[in-house]
Amino acid sequence: MKKELDAIFKPKSVAIIGATGRKGSIGRETLHNILLAEFNGKVFPVNPNAQVIHSIKAYSTVLDVPDAVDLAIIIVPKEKVAEVVTQCGEKGVKGIVVITAGFSETGKEGEKREKEVLNIVREYGMRMIGPNCFGIVNTDPKVNLNATFGKTYPKQGRIGFITQSGAMGEAIMNTAKELGIGFSVVASIGNKADISSNDILEYFKNDPNTDIILLYLENFGNPKRFTQIAREISRKKPMVVVKSGRTSLGAKAASSHTGALAGLDVGVDALFEQTGVMRVDTVEELFNVASALANQPVPKGNKVCVVTNAGGPGILATDALINNGLEMPTLSPATIKTLKKFISSEASFSNPMDMVAGAGAKEFKLTLDAVLKDKRYDAIIPIFVPPVTIDQLEVAKNIYEAVKKSNKTILACFMGAGYGSEGVSFLKEHNIPVFIFPEAIAKTLATISSYNKWLTSPKGKYRTFKVDRDKVKSIFNKAKSEKLDAIVGEDAIEILQAYGIRSAGYQYASTANEAAAIATKLGYPVVMKINTPQILHKTEFGAVVVDLRTEKEVKTTFNDLKKKIVKFKPNEKFSVSLQEMITEGVETVIGMSIDPSFGPLVMFGLGGIYVEIMKDVSFKIHPLTDVQARDMIRSLKSYPLLSGFRGAKPVDLKTLEETLLRVSQLIHDFEDFIEIDINPFIVSPNKENCKAVDARFILKK
Amino acid sequence: MKKELDAIFKPKSVAIIGATGRKGSIGRETLHNILLAEFNGKVFPVNPNAQVIHSIKAYSTVLDVPDAVDLAIIIVPKEKVAEVVTQCGEKGVKGIVVITAGFSETGKEGEKREKEVLNIVREYGMRMIGPNCFGIVNTDPKVNLNATFGKTYPKQGRIGFITQSGAMGEAIMNTAKELGIGFSVVASIGNKADISSNDILEYFKNDPNTDIILLYLENFGNPKRFTQIAREISRKKPMVVVKSGRTSLGAKAASSHTGALAGLDVGVDALFEQTGVMRVDTVEELFNVASALANQPVPKGNKVCVVTNAGGPGILATDALINNGLEMPTLSPATIKTLKKFISSEASFSNPMDMVAGAGAKEFKLTLDAVLKDKRYDAIIPIFVPPVTIDQLEVAKNIYEAVKKSNKTILACFMGAGYGSEGVSFLKEHNIPVFIFPEAIAKTLATISSYNKWLTSPKGKYRTFKVDRDKVKSIFNKAKSEKLDAIVGEDAIEILQAYGIRSAGYQYASTANEAAAIATKLGYPVVMKINTPQILHKTEFGAVVVDLRTEKEVKTTFNDLKKKIVKFKPNEKFSVSLQEMITEGVETVIGMSIDPSFGPLVMFGLGGIYVEIMKDVSFKIHPLTDVQARDMIRSLKSYPLLSGFRGAKPVDLKTLEETLLRVSQLIHDFEDFIEIDINPFIVSPNKENCKAVDARFILKK
Repeated sequence: MKKELDAIFKPKSVAIIGATGRKGSIGRETLHNILLAEFNGKVFPVNPNAQVIHSIKAYSTVLDVPDAVDLAIIIVPKEKVAEVVTQCGEKGVKGIVVITAGFSETGKEGEKREKEVLNIVREYGMRMIGPNCFGIVNTDPKVNLNATFGKTYPKQGRIGFITQSGAMGEAIMNTAKELGIGFSVVASIGNKADISSNDILEYFKNDPNTDIILLYLENFGNPKRFTQIAREISRKKPMVVVKSGRTSLGAKAASSHTGALAGLDVGVDALFEQTGVMRVDTVEELFNVASALANQPVPKGNKVCVVTNAGGPGILATDALINNGLEMPTLSPATIKTLKKFISSEASFSNPMDMVAGAGAKEFKLTLDAVLKDKRYDAIIPIFVPPVTIDQLEVAKNIYEAVKKSNKTILACFMGAGYGSEGVSFLKEHNIPVFIFPEAIAKTLATISSYNKWLTSPKGKYRTFKVDRDKVKSIFNKAKSEKLDAIVGEDAIEILQAYGIRSAGYQYASTANEAAAIATKLGYPVVMKINTPQILHKTEFGAVVVDLRTEKEVKTTFNDLKKKIVKFKPNEKFSVSLQEMITEGVETVIGMSIDPSFGPLVMFGLGGIYVEIMKDVSFKIHPLTDVQARDMIRSLKSYPLLSGFRGAKPVDLKTLEETLLRVSQLIHDFEDFIEIDINPFIVSPNKENCKAVDARFILKK
Repeated sequence: MKKELDAIFKPKSVAIIGATGRKGSIGRETLHNILLAEFNGKVFPVNPNAQVIHSIKAYSTVLDVPDAVDLAIIIVPKEKVAEVVTQCGEKGVKGIVVITAGFSETGKEGEKREKEVLNIVREYGMRMIGPNCFGIVNTDPKVNLNATFGKTYPKQGRIGFITQSGAMGEAIMNTAKELGIGFSVVASIGNKADISSNDILEYFKNDPNTDIILLYLENFGNPKRFTQIAREISRKKPMVVVKSGRTSLGAKAASSHTGALAGLDVGVDALFEQTGVMRVDTVEELFNVASALANQPVPKGNKVCVVTNAGGPGILATDALINNGLEMPTLSPATIKTLKKFISSEASFSNPMDMVAGAGAKEFKLTLDAVLKDKRYDAIIPIFVPPVTIDQLEVAKNIYEAVKKSNKTILACFMGAGYGSEGVSFLKEHNIPVFIFPEAIAKTLATISSYNKWLTSPKGKYRTFKVDRDKVKSIFNKAKSEKLDAIVGEDAIEILQAYGIRSAGYQYASTANEAAAIATKLGYPVVMKINTPQILHKTEFGAVVVDLRTEKEVKTTFNDLKKKIVKFKPNEKFSVSLQEMITEGVETVIGMSIDPSFGPLVMFGLGGIYVEIMKDVSFKIHPLTDVQARDMIRSLKSYPLLSGFRGAKPVDLKTLEETLLRVSQLIHDFEDFIEIDINPFIVSPNKENCKAVDARFILKK
């Protein structure tokens, strides 16, 4: 694979098929770019209607090229692509990049055209990027390949960039150039007919020129493979992604744009979270994070100190840092003692450390020296607002002197200094990212801190429990033979029990006396439900009565319900189910649904309104490790309700975690469940009282 | 007042007291700036140690200046300020700007120094800006005053800018200049010893050069006056504010920075919301909103259409718009019909309207023409990603041609085109704000849409109900005479009832038989509570028992509780309170607390965890209008629980609204309550069942 992609990214000879001399045409600009970047290889323009393009001899077809051709860039009209690709195959070309659009992104006919081209590519053992892409770039001085039609040849750098949208690719390269950010390889992957982002990720894994990977994605072709690759790569090379289609309307646009079904966004978030990929919302954040990663170490924790010569920006920075989940411990007594030796007593000696106006280069140096020694901090943010009386280049030099040997993360803010000012330029040249306003620093730091948290958190283990798989198998087979859509009621509870998930069992009664006898056996209070499948939304119908405390109440209720149901369904045989009532504990919901891209997603949340209105739920992609089960519970906003709210006893979190893992095992064992809903699952301080009360398993049709 | 401030902002003669010739000194730079800006008046440097500064004759003291002096800029050392200000008074100077720092921002001694100066200012009937400020600017060509020591003289524009932090002021002016944003007047107000932001707001109200007002604030001196002024001004001149100190740590920094107690942030949010002031989080947003307001109409609603030549950015824009609460209705059939005449059938004809790559200037013009006619939209966002083959200036010109006569809000995105590119420059010159990435547009549009919502929403009325004020007065007096800290229990319930707020009344019993008799009279089920003031947190002690259904249960419970309390307080006379139990309805909390800056804040939220953990509450500054009471309820995330969740009947919202207004009236009538907690207030579909169950009024000490 690596060798195949080397032919594309490090070719020795390139044919530009469809090159023309017409100014502004894609072919001409691509050829022009290759020449301008001083490509270290041979270039052959191919065009049946020209003898010379850009002073270079042109050939009618690629077959006429006298030398071997590693890579062909194809820009001919869409109807001619198949023919030209066949010629490439005959010629022995190894890789092709099809810039031409009008394929699967445009509907049925385009799809057919794309399939035809792909078949030719496969037949000849070639590899293809595109169609409908922007081209590729390799800035390695040994290669110098700029096979794109854009205006920008990016600076050399250590960032590999994969973009699914050509337009975004160009926009991002332009902006990167303005910001002074360089790339190793850029790949616009278009419709991903053959080579996918996963393939290029694999390539980046072993590319010695690439340390950081940026992606602009609209959808996933093979998320399972992405998960494997990303989890491995991001341990060594940080990955940052802008994935569009976050809202359902956005996803709709994404799907019409790419001709591929975009996954539910909650799955995407879970995927990135589980693989250590940093997701950012905007292209600006993408650059901010990239420049921090490219120039500074990943912070070892989330504790920050702000050092400033101006109060206002210090406060803005503090607001932004705290809002982004970072911590700002106070200065240690030793640090304060040191600082008091040279900082005006009017200063605050707190965090933010406001040295007050008048503080100059020397004060920055000495204060940073002191704060860097303070073990409380993982990252330091020097903020400088240039007053006229202070030489900002001198300040920049002193900041650099102070921090150059530190292994803490340094992100500086030169507020209102102007993007191209002397001080800003100096710091950038010395690998200290500089921001104009402090809010962007906070967001950036939060993102790279979360990456560090992922890097350092235990990987977790998959656990397997002793379960009665055969029991479930038989319930499942029975349901299938009866052509049921779902397994509910007693059968559903039995599935849970077979997997070691404690449940409040059912018992049925068809007379008032029978009901009373069962209730007395179960122990009061009990819950009574009408046992009529037709009455689906039982709560709304009033078909569930809770907290029955005496034999008398049970009998009266039985008769009341019977009267009700007789009116509604006169010919139905009437019976009820009885269940012990769990009076203590917190209602939770454990669920599973299938994401079209990612497969089963496990869901956990608190019951009722927390799930439905507050949307306070957590999702993970199945299968779960023990660490992930733990995280799912702890990441809820309503977690305090489980850990002991208002002096209450905490619930048995270990049992809850184990239950999630047992559900994950059940999902693994039975792929024909397309939805699981254990609702409510009651959790209590007492292990015996952690019980499922109701469950439903929807079956694949 | 206006005249007094005219002397400061439109002086005919200015003295620079403390001007020096030393390069880099604040005095020298200020004088230099005044000269550079070609001030339309006379300038007199004042310095006892120089005869000539910058080729201008200098005077020993301001008293030696031969002409009248309107404005003095004071830059002498802090110890000399009082003396120099006295001389100004003697000279008949009308206004002074004290740039010198070292006053109330630095502690007790500085406070004393500031007070002394203020007394002199008042004695002579002068007005003062500062101390500890950055200076002032008036770009009116008739004035041309740049009395600051910064490096930037801003462009002329129609934005008035007030900043509490000099450093932020300079940073903001620098950045504004880079972005091409102009100001009418800039005032750095420093410690606000005399002239406050409120005074300058009043000045802007009548300033014909100022259409938009920007503020950078760290705290409020007189929030009541701010409320009055802001509410009036923002009907005509939009106001945008960055208020720092949003988090508690930020607020702490703010308070040490300014030597003033910053208000709780929830009060600040309520204040801005109630006065139509747009609050933004970052300085970048401040500029984005300012440039949208300066160049485009405020959108009439929140419906947006995106027109793009590239799919990726269209999706990003859609995500960002939807996440920011904007709507993107589909194109009308008529619009689609028009578009199909000239747009490739490969396009999406949805919203975002992706014209697909290859669309150029002509397509932008025609598509925008069609979409502008579509009555569904209030704002249009053209997004252009410049491919090499299309002339971006031509696109810019065509966009302008299409929209120039429209009264819809147009914010354009030229993705990756570069800040200074031809197309971007053309649009900016023609009053169309251009953003490089679409996410910032979404945020900007959301902010100005919320302003429009405020502008167009009914102002609301204050309502007064017939209440028994004397009854409350007597309860209150009794509590005061008994030196109670709080009114609780029966008395608290009586206060509510006197103000027409229905409550579940208490009855007391000191024997089991008495309790049973009362319970039978109230009707089952009932709630029993231990009536012992020492047991404050009754729920945790187990001193509240709910849902007692029979005489027998009441008696048993009475005896159980008695046993418990005898152990705990053997000498206490034992009694319980009994209350009917409200079995249906939703628990809410209505509260009031006093904000140190804003006075009483009324709070509303759903009970228990919603308030305490989910923080799902709304605050308004007292007094409430009917519209505000309505908004408070509807703005909760958990509002669906009130309006009919899962087919439940909606609660009686009218009664709930009225209850909030009655509480507001109670707050108005009794200023000695410093905290009110009506918890729970049960709301039901049925008016009779909307009842307070418990209440507590904390009294001022």
